[in-house]
Amino acid sequence: MKNIYTDLALEVAEALIETTQSTLDGVEIERTEYPEYTVTWVKVTNETGARILSREIGNYVTVESQSLRTGDVTAHEKIIEVLVDIIARLKKNDDGDVLVVGLGNHGVTPDALGPRVVSKTFVTRNILNEVPDETRGKTRPVAAVAPGVLGTTGIETRDIVKGICEKMNPSLVIAVDALAARKTSRVNTTIQVTDTGIVPGGGMGNARAALNEYFLGTQVIAIGVPTVVDAATLVTDCLDSVLELLAETEQDTETYSELSKLREEEKYEIVSVALEPYDGNMFVTPKEVDEVIARLSNVIANALNISLHKGITLEDINRFMY
Amino acid sequence: MKNIYTDLALEVAEALIETTQSTLDGVEIERTEYPEYTVTWVKVTNETGARILSREIGNYVTVESQSLRTGDVTAHEKIIEVLVDIIARLKKNDDGDVLVVGLGNHGVTPDALGPRVVSKTFVTRNILNEVPDETRGKTRPVAAVAPGVLGTTGIETRDIVKGICEKMNPSLVIAVDALAARKTSRVNTTIQVTDTGIVPGGGMGNARAALNEYFLGTQVIAIGVPTVVDAATLVTDCLDSVLELLAETEQDTETYSELSKLREEEKYEIVSVALEPYDGNMFVTPKEVDEVIARLSNVIANALNISLHKGITLEDINRFMY
Amino acid sequence: MKNIYTDLALEVAEALIETTQSTLDGVEIERTEYPEYTVTWVKVTNETGARILSREIGNYVTVESQSLRTGDVTAHEKIIEVLVDIIARLKKNDDGDVLVVGLGNHGVTPDALGPRVVSKTFVTRNILNEVPDETRGKTRPVAAVAPGVLGTTGIETRDIVKGICEKMNPSLVIAVDALAARKTSRVNTTIQVTDTGIVPGGGMGNARAALNEYFLGTQVIAIGVPTVVDAATLVTDCLDSVLELLAETEQDTETYSELSKLREEEKYEIVSVALEPYDGNMFVTPKEVDEVIARLSNVIANALNISLHKGITLEDINRFMY
Amino acid sequence: MKNIYTDLALEVAEALIETTQSTLDGVEIERTEYPEYTVTWVKVTNETGARILSREIGNYVTVESQSLRTGDVTAHEKIIEVLVDIIARLKKNDDGDVLVVGLGNHGVTPDALGPRVVSKTFVTRNILNEVPDETRGKTRPVAAVAPGVLGTTGIETRDIVKGICEKMNPSLVIAVDALAARKTSRVNTTIQVTDTGIVPGGGMGNARAALNEYFLGTQVIAIGVPTVVDAATLVTDCLDSVLELLAETEQDTETYSELSKLREEEKYEIVSVALEPYDGNMFVTPKEVDEVIARLSNVIANALNISLHKGITLEDINRFMY
Repeated sequence: MKNIYTDLALEVAEALIETTQSTLDGVEIERTEYPEYTVTWVKVTNETGARILSREIGNYVTVESQSLRTGDVTAHEKIIEVLVDIIARLKKNDDGDVLVVGLGNHGVTPDALGPRVVSKTFVTRNILNEVPDETRGKTRPVAAVAPGVLGTTGIETRDIVKGICEKMNPSLVIAVDALAARKTSRVNTTIQVTDTGIVPGGGMGNARAALNEYFLGTQVIAIGVPTVVDAATLVTDCLDSVLELLAETEQDTETYSELSKLREEEKYEIVSVALEPYDGNMFVTPKEVDEVIARLSNVIANALNISLHKGITLEDINRFMY
Repeated sequence: MKNIYTDLALEVAEALIETTQSTLDGVEIERTEYPEYTVTWVKVTNETGARILSREIGNYVTVESQSLRTGDVTAHEKIIEVLVDIIARLKKNDDGDVLVVGLGNHGVTPDALGPRVVSKTFVTRNILNEVPDETRGKTRPVAAVAPGVLGTTGIETRDIVKGICEKMNPSLVIAVDALAARKTSRVNTTIQVTDTGIVPGGGMGNARAALNEYFLGTQVIAIGVPTVVDAATLVTDCLDSVLELLAETEQDTETYSELSKLREEEKYEIVSVALEPYDGNMFVTPKEVDEVIARLSNVIANALNISLHKGITLEDINRFMY
Repeated sequence: MKNIYTDLALEVAEALIETTQSTLDGVEIERTEYPEYTVTWVKVTNETGARILSREIGNYVTVESQSLRTGDVTAHEKIIEVLVDIIARLKKNDDGDVLVVGLGNHGVTPDALGPRVVSKTFVTRNILNEVPDETRGKTRPVAAVAPGVLGTTGIETRDIVKGICEKMNPSLVIAVDALAARKTSRVNTTIQVTDTGIVPGGGMGNARAALNEYFLGTQVIAIGVPTVVDAATLVTDCLDSVLELLAETEQDTETYSELSKLREEEKYEIVSVALEPYDGNMFVTPKEVDEVIARLSNVIANALNISLHKGITLEDINRFMY
Repeated sequence: MKNIYTDLALEVAEALIETTQSTLDGVEIERTEYPEYTVTWVKVTNETGARILSREIGNYVTVESQSLRTGDVTAHEKIIEVLVDIIARLKKNDDGDVLVVGLGNHGVTPDALGPRVVSKTFVTRNILNEVPDETRGKTRPVAAVAPGVLGTTGIETRDIVKGICEKMNPSLVIAVDALAARKTSRVNTTIQVTDTGIVPGGGMGNARAALNEYFLGTQVIAIGVPTVVDAATLVTDCLDSVLELLAETEQDTETYSELSKLREEEKYEIVSVALEPYDGNMFVTPKEVDEVIARLSNVIANALNISLHKGITLEDINRFMY
């Protein structure tokens, strides 16, 4: 499976189900379609499921809507509401400080989602003793940081986050990051919420380096949107499509087996040459990425603001976040 | 040739020569290799050449160096010097005002090259009557604007530039833009300088909309660096590679012709599905695009500063542009 | 009146009325107080008024509200409505293209108001033939540019704007800029709307260089907010206060006249020494300037979006501009 | 001494010496003038000196040069060299990791010095095992963070820095911040280097909250440049000047004492009214603040890069930092 990369548990599950034509042990999938969006809960319930999916035990909730790519505000409001509901079901507590962490590099547009959400989060931890008692009860102490990326700071991002957590002792960490999908149809149209944490900078199966409850000692809810597809993944998938198409049209068994052989041997070489000299370090993203990131960061920040502050409603958000 | 896109005249010429296995009428190509870089002059000398290449008559000079992707300052200095030399050979006059135009969207990292160069250009037109006489003789009046993109301003970029030119009457316009290459090996490693102008926002063969001497009434030197590859182009090229490979291994004539047929009929469909729902509006770019854009904009801005101000040397640049 | 600087017609009028203790010939002032804000129309009706106020004949409407400094969204909505009403009364036509011009330097926080408003303006001129007929009737073609400042571009800003106007022929230009007030109490609490145009970069009485209907051939509505006080103005006013206080307490005529003499002779010297070596090129601004500029640019951009597009209401704005 | 604020130890010392007309116990001052700049070492040697100056025991080295306000590159190079020398004399070790901390708010131009220096610092801690052995010996592991400000993050900045230090265990912390001066002549012309740490967000005498060796367990060298003057300080000083002038000209003892009384009673009131409603939260800064911050951040970042990496010379800096 070289060259195939996705941060979405749903994509991994779907690919496996398609291949095996059966349900997966230890993985429960529940999909509900609404007019404006679709919600899919992928629950990894035991170690078998975790191994199959290369994912931690826990919940991976995906909200899909083509409206996220566009300016359909009515749909966005519904998506904000469903995100608030998902976060409410995942989070273990309503008291104590919250730390919102915006992962990613603010200098690379499709990677700037996390820092942008942080800039739109209502930060209240520093002013709670200044607000009226009445408001205080409805407002949870929220802090927010964008810790940068290893290449810019020279420090592992999770170390920075862990260091901050040890000082402020949050009872909940919410990490927001841009992700990579396998299929372009999921780019900027899918929001994944999980209670299993997140690996800053991606890197499948590298659970050691994750920002999760085990590492931080605090529940971590991660919210991510795929804003790119890994270029090698996209190209490899295209080659598979063409080879499948050829195989279908071949009656001749010998030719068919040649195609299969090629699939194994030569594909990787073709992809490497195509992406030379960047070997795997290229991504694919839509041209209007700046506008989409602006919209997505609003949707997520608004969902967080409503989730974290009891006193805030969707109507308030419309008026306050302008 | 659907889905195949490049802004580099050199790539078009190379592809045609490879296909036809002959020289091109009306196109002269002269390639010189140096230790740190390679310079190729593509001269389109008559209408035949212009039609073959879908390019205007004029000069297209390409400087290629892998060092542009990395931090090799010694090589960069040599490239700055060769750019100064190329600009000197292309520009028709040394007097009068110069307008540097940084095309592209500063909010999308790989498209921000032009605006970044503008921010590093020595602007002198407004202060020339404040500087000592001695310096004045060595300093050309330079103005610089980043006019934005149609999607942001609502105005055709060339109309903005034309409107400004009619007010300030420059004797030379230098337009800088991020380009699209066909091959990833040219991304961030190639600088194209041409005296034929440029089409803001790309769009091959659409000469009506170009920023060129015919439209502006002033010589236009365009400097561009491919920072992306069109995603559909990249994928189509990969499919061609795999099909060629298959065709080579097929002895059976019938299968061979089937592959050829597929090339014509199905390829476009596969690419469309792969990039759905973005049909062609996706690009491929390396992950470290922010650092590379910072370096490239320095190289180009320094070359411009030396080219436009007689009194400035490479050593000064090293000291002034820090 | 050296060292005294304000861009607000209202401040000039008030200072003159205070000094002369009478109404001003050719200047009509109408002040209406509402719970959340105060609106003052200053009409300069003839040449005498124009000379007295050093302002062009026309309307200068000021909306004042301390809520602009803070996050009182309910008050902001009312101010948006009153701005929409003022713009409706000042603008001469409802058809044809509109050009929104964001004056100022985006790199200096208190000067970034204009560019920020531009970035929040609904730009529709480039997409009107893509929208459904129904919407088209409710949407005016709007373009928006932030032309930068002379020190950065090397070109007079009004020349850039004039050049663009000659290409796109708008029937209305709306220019937005950060202003200087005389009193800190007006900083970030006052919005001035005028149909007489604006002088980019300030500079009282220099009507030659103004962006106005005479220069552009199109109505110009200027919207400005004082975000700074000129430092020399602030200090000079303080010295006047202390001298007045002293004069009041002095019975001794001789001392009083000495104080008056000092007012004439030494004040300028003291201020110059205090601001050395920046002679007059310093400004005073509040520490939270970044947040206030973000809020003010939202209020103004929303008022513009509602004013220019019939189909948009305040409720839509709340939902769309998030 | 209400309303009087400065972050420069030198200004406090000078004001005290002027008032007392004597040397200060526990404070040694050594001033050396060079053609392009002046260096002043203020050493606080004992508790008496610390109390008198409201400063910790330690070294406060000030480099003053009007060239910092302007583009005199030759002078800047000399200042870089003297900064390298000062840092070399203050720092206790040459081994182990270094953490560069850029304090301040990147969204407010005069407060952005720290974050800008961070963006120009050579970060090497993450790549040292990738570089050749030869280079490794000449390169110290450097990390760099811009932790933001309390109002944006909701977390005390020193807690963020302490949390990061506990994870990465640097042997040296270098904190860079924009400061406030008392006199405008020091704005953007003075660099203070101290081995006593720094108080993020200013706030004299509040040693509890400082980023210093006591708090972090690691040597802290702080580098600051005053980019603003507190507005209340500026105005109060001007009032004092005018009152002194009046007092000098008064023969009449009674009037003189009235002036003195006024100094005590009314000054604060006048200043409060002048700055209303911002009571003390306003600053004064020059109009070209964006350009000056760009230059100052280059000077400091270059000095740091040379100080921290043995293998880098001034000539390299000129070539690498472009």
